[in-house]
Amino acid sequence: MEFFKVVSVEEGKEALLENFKDFEFQLEEVDIFKSHGRILGEDIYSNENVPEFDRSSVDGYAIKASDSYGASDSIPSILNIIGEVRMGEETDLSLRSGQAVYVPTGGMIPEGADGMIMIENTEKMDETTLLVNKPISQGEEMIFKGDDIKKDSLVLKKGRKVTPEVMGVLAALGIANVKVFKKPGFYIISTGDEIIDMGQELTMGKIRDINAYSLYGLIEKLGGQVVGKAIVRDDYQLLRDEVDKALNMADIVLLSGGSSVGTRDYTYKVIDSFNGKGVFVHGVSIKPGKPTIMGEGMGKLIFGLPGHPVSSIVVFKTFLEYFISKKLGMDIVRPRLDAVMDFNFPSSPGKVTYQTVDLLEKEGAFYALPTFGKSGMITLLSDSQGYIVIEAHEEGIYKGEKREVYLL
Amino acid sequence: MEFFKVVSVEEGKEALLENFKDFEFQLEEVDIFKSHGRILGEDIYSNENVPEFDRSSVDGYAIKASDSYGASDSIPSILNIIGEVRMGEETDLSLRSGQAVYVPTGGMIPEGADGMIMIENTEKMDETTLLVNKPISQGEEMIFKGDDIKKDSLVLKKGRKVTPEVMGVLAALGIANVKVFKKPGFYIISTGDEIIDMGQELTMGKIRDINAYSLYGLIEKLGGQVVGKAIVRDDYQLLRDEVDKALNMADIVLLSGGSSVGTRDYTYKVIDSFNGKGVFVHGVSIKPGKPTIMGEGMGKLIFGLPGHPVSSIVVFKTFLEYFISKKLGMDIVRPRLDAVMDFNFPSSPGKVTYQTVDLLEKEGAFYALPTFGKSGMITLLSDSQGYIVIEAHEEGIYKGEKREVYLL
Repeated sequence: MEFFKVVSVEEGKEALLENFKDFEFQLEEVDIFKSHGRILGEDIYSNENVPEFDRSSVDGYAIKASDSYGASDSIPSILNIIGEVRMGEETDLSLRSGQAVYVPTGGMIPEGADGMIMIENTEKMDETTLLVNKPISQGEEMIFKGDDIKKDSLVLKKGRKVTPEVMGVLAALGIANVKVFKKPGFYIISTGDEIIDMGQELTMGKIRDINAYSLYGLIEKLGGQVVGKAIVRDDYQLLRDEVDKALNMADIVLLSGGSSVGTRDYTYKVIDSFNGKGVFVHGVSIKPGKPTIMGEGMGKLIFGLPGHPVSSIVVFKTFLEYFISKKLGMDIVRPRLDAVMDFNFPSSPGKVTYQTVDLLEKEGAFYALPTFGKSGMITLLSDSQGYIVIEAHEEGIYKGEKREVYLL
Repeated sequence: MEFFKVVSVEEGKEALLENFKDFEFQLEEVDIFKSHGRILGEDIYSNENVPEFDRSSVDGYAIKASDSYGASDSIPSILNIIGEVRMGEETDLSLRSGQAVYVPTGGMIPEGADGMIMIENTEKMDETTLLVNKPISQGEEMIFKGDDIKKDSLVLKKGRKVTPEVMGVLAALGIANVKVFKKPGFYIISTGDEIIDMGQELTMGKIRDINAYSLYGLIEKLGGQVVGKAIVRDDYQLLRDEVDKALNMADIVLLSGGSSVGTRDYTYKVIDSFNGKGVFVHGVSIKPGKPTIMGEGMGKLIFGLPGHPVSSIVVFKTFLEYFISKKLGMDIVRPRLDAVMDFNFPSSPGKVTYQTVDLLEKEGAFYALPTFGKSGMITLLSDSQGYIVIEAHEEGIYKGEKREVYLL
C-alpha cells in the first residue's frame, strides 16, 4: 500500500476546481412550470417595462397632487369628476387641475394625474363632484411605468436559483421558456461484498445499501439527477466495467464505500486506468470522512466517498455541493441558525470536525446538544437537526458559546 | 359594502384549524426513489436490527480487549491469529483469550471477541503471530447488533419530511415503498379584467399574471401540486363556475387578486354560494396583505389572496404553509439566521409587519439592510434574501439590534 499526502478541506476544494477548470455543465430550455429549483443558465434581460403604464395601487381618484394641498375634513378640496378608468383598459382621458378620475387598484392612471387619493379619504357629492379630505404628495399610491422592472435591464443573473419569487419575475416579463443548466447527472456505484440491495434477503454478514439512497436524496436536493445506480462486488474488473459504463452516462461518478485500506488500492487503479488525470486527491483531513478519493477520467469527476453513512453525507455536502454550486455559479446561502452550545466538546486538532447536534428552542433562543453515535450509524443523522463545523485550528466547543448550526 | 372585523394573524391561523378540524389529506404509497421531500403518512417501525450482527468499524483484528491491557510499543501483547473474516460472509470462528481474527471494516465480528484493534496498532510477525502495541477498551471500534436501529422500535414518525437522511434510514430497514401524504392539490384562479396570461399580447392597461407563477413555485416548494390554473374576468357567474370546477379537483382553491374593495363583494358571494360555512375570515391585520379572505365550501378551503405580488407571497407563507404543516403533522423549522439590523424602521402598530431585507456578510456576522419598494413589485422579493417579522406589539426595528431573518 502506498502512502499519500492527506490534504485539508480547502486544498481538496481547490483541487476539484483546478482539475475541472474547463468542465462545463450543459444547458437546456424548460417551460416556466418546470423551472422551480433549477439554476438559470443565462442572464435574463427584460424586453418590457413592468408595468407598461402608470398604475394605481389603491381604489381611488387620480388627481393632481397640488389640488389636494391644504385639504382637510373641514376644508376639503372640491374637484370635478370627469370620468373613470375601467380595469384592464386603456384610457384616453387627460386630466387638468381641478379634475379627478376614478381608478381602481391596478388600473391605468390617466395622463396629467400625478397622484392617487384613496377612496376612503374622499366623499362623492354627486356624479361629478368630489370632496378631497386629505393632502397627498406627488406620486402617492402610484406604481410608475418601469418601476418594478425597467426595459433592457439585467433582471436575473446566470447561476440564480429559480425560487417562487424568480418565477414571478419571469412571469412578469412574459418569459414562458427559460434556459437552465441540465440537472447534473450522477451515477452511484456502491462497492463491497457485504452490500445487498433493496429486495434481496438479508443474510448474516450482509448489510443493506444505505448510502446509495441517502446520496440519491442529497443529489435530488442539490438539483441533480441520478442517471444510474449499481452495486459492485470487490473486484477490479467488475468495478472497471461499471465505471466505464457510468462515465458514458453521467457527469459525475460516485463510488460509495470501497475506500477502506483493503479495497482502496484497486479503486485507485480503476480510476487511473481511464484516459485522464487519474486520482488527484488521496484523502482529506475531515472528521468523519478521511477516506475520500477524487479523480478524473474521460473528463468526468470520479469521487470516492467513505463507506460510513455519516461520513458519506458529510463529504458529499462538503465537496460535491461546493463543486456543483461553483460550476453553476450559484450563490448558496446554506440554511443555518445561531445556537447556544449546551455542551463542551474537544475536537481533533488539525482536522475539520463535523459534530451533529439536536436543537432545543427555549424562550426564543436555540440551544444545541450534541448527538453522539458512531459514524457508521444512519440514525445519527436522521436524529439530528443540524451540525456544527469545528475548524482545524480550533480546540473544540465551549459550553455557553454561540455558534452557527447548519440545518440538515 | 359591508364592514367586517379584521382578525389578527394568530386568530386567522386558529380560524383555519378550527374550520378544518375534520379535514384530512389523503395517503398514497410511493417508491423510495420517489419519496424525497414527501411527508410520511405513517409511523415507521423497524422489522430488523441494523446491523443484524456485531460489525467492525475499522480494518484490524478482533480480540478480547483484556488481552491488550498494558500493551505498548516496547511491551506488545502477543496473540495467535486463528483466521480471518471475509467481507459479507458469516463467520463460525469462535475466539478465546490469546487469539485474534482479522476483520475488515464492516465485517462480522466473531463470537468471543469484544473489541477491535486497528491494523495500524499491530504488527504481523508471521501468518499466525500478531503483536498488539496499544490497549483497547471493551467494545472499541465495534458496532453492535441493533446499535443503529433496534428491531420493533419506532424509527420515524408520521409527519416526518423525507430528507436524504430519512431515505438512508428507510433503506437501512429495506423499506422499498412508503406511505406518504398525497401532495396537497391546489387550484389557482387569478381574477381581474386586467390580467393576461403568458403568451397573450400585452396591451395598454393589461398586466401579466405574476402571482399564479410565484404561487406555483411556493406550492411546489411546500410539497404540494397545482392541479389546475385559470384566469377569470371580474364576473360573478364566471368566477362561480370556475370555483365549482376547482372544488371538484383540488384540496385548496386559491383566489389570487380580486380582493380589492371593488371585487371583494362578489368574491364573498361566490364563496358563500357553495354548501359549507362560507367566508369565515374577512381580513387579517398583516402588512402587507390585509385583504385576505378565508372560506369553506364543499369541505374545501377557499383562500382569497391579495393581488399585490409581495402581499400574495407573504400571506401564502403565513397561512397556507402553516395550514399544510399542521394538517400533515410536520415540524417545520423555517430556515433563518441571526443578523444585526443595520437600519431603524418604524412599524405599523397593531399589525404584524413583514419587512424584506438584504443580507451582507462581514467578518462572519450578518448585517441586514431593508429592501424598499411597493408591495406591487415582484422584484422587491426577488431582490431580497429574507424578511423580518415585526410583531403587532412592537414599535419597530432599532439599528444595532440582533434579529432573526427568515430566508426566502
